[in-house]
Amino acid sequence: MKRISSDTPLSPACRMIEQFGSRWALLVLLTLEQHGTLRYSALRRNIPGGISERMLAATLDGLEQSGLVDRTVYPEVPPRVEYRLTPKTASLLPILHELLAWTETHAE
Amino acid sequence: MKRISSDTPLSPACRMIEQFGSRWALLVLLTLEQHGTLRYSALRRNIPGGISERMLAATLDGLEQSGLVDRTVYPEVPPRVEYRLTPKTASLLPILHELLAWTETHAE
Repeated sequence: MKRISSDTPLSPACRMIEQFGSRWALLVLLTLEQHGTLRYSALRRNIPGGISERMLAATLDGLEQSGLVDRTVYPEVPPRVEYRLTPKTASLLPILHELLAWTETHAE
Repeated sequence: MKRISSDTPLSPACRMIEQFGSRWALLVLLTLEQHGTLRYSALRRNIPGGISERMLAATLDGLEQSGLVDRTVYPEVPPRVEYRLTPKTASLLPILHELLAWTETHAE
């Protein structure tokens, strides 16, 4: 059993889980997993349930800062902006799917 | 690959992940895992980083409603209140530890 105390790096870990543990962050990650690279508008359209522009922008910002999502801007007119998962997210997704499977079994 | 759409039970699953994905909820679960049954005051003392009374009460409330934590009140004077993980939480903890291990490796 893992000992937890204030000198373990648990706190950054918890902050990061809190980051991708938000409902919208999870849905963004799963939508990009399913569709691969997506432009902003297509990403928004493919997120189930409907997400506001503001919430999607904030969620993508947080995911980009955590290094979970890559944002590429192509210098076209108008600029094309595409989002995709980063390589490190590939190793996170199996754990997120385990977590989703657990909650689907145990949610009341 | 799992298809996501608005008719899958992803939404309750996401809400539940959001619930235990909060920093304090995670710390409560890990503290109860480490110490077993704890009274409110001992639980609060053992949570690293310091948690306010109000935040701990709200976190425990949410975890109890999700069926992740059991609250037992012993009719003594003054009443003794004890918290422990529920049996279903036992199957969640290995996944949470995987998630923590992942974030410890990948947090920047």
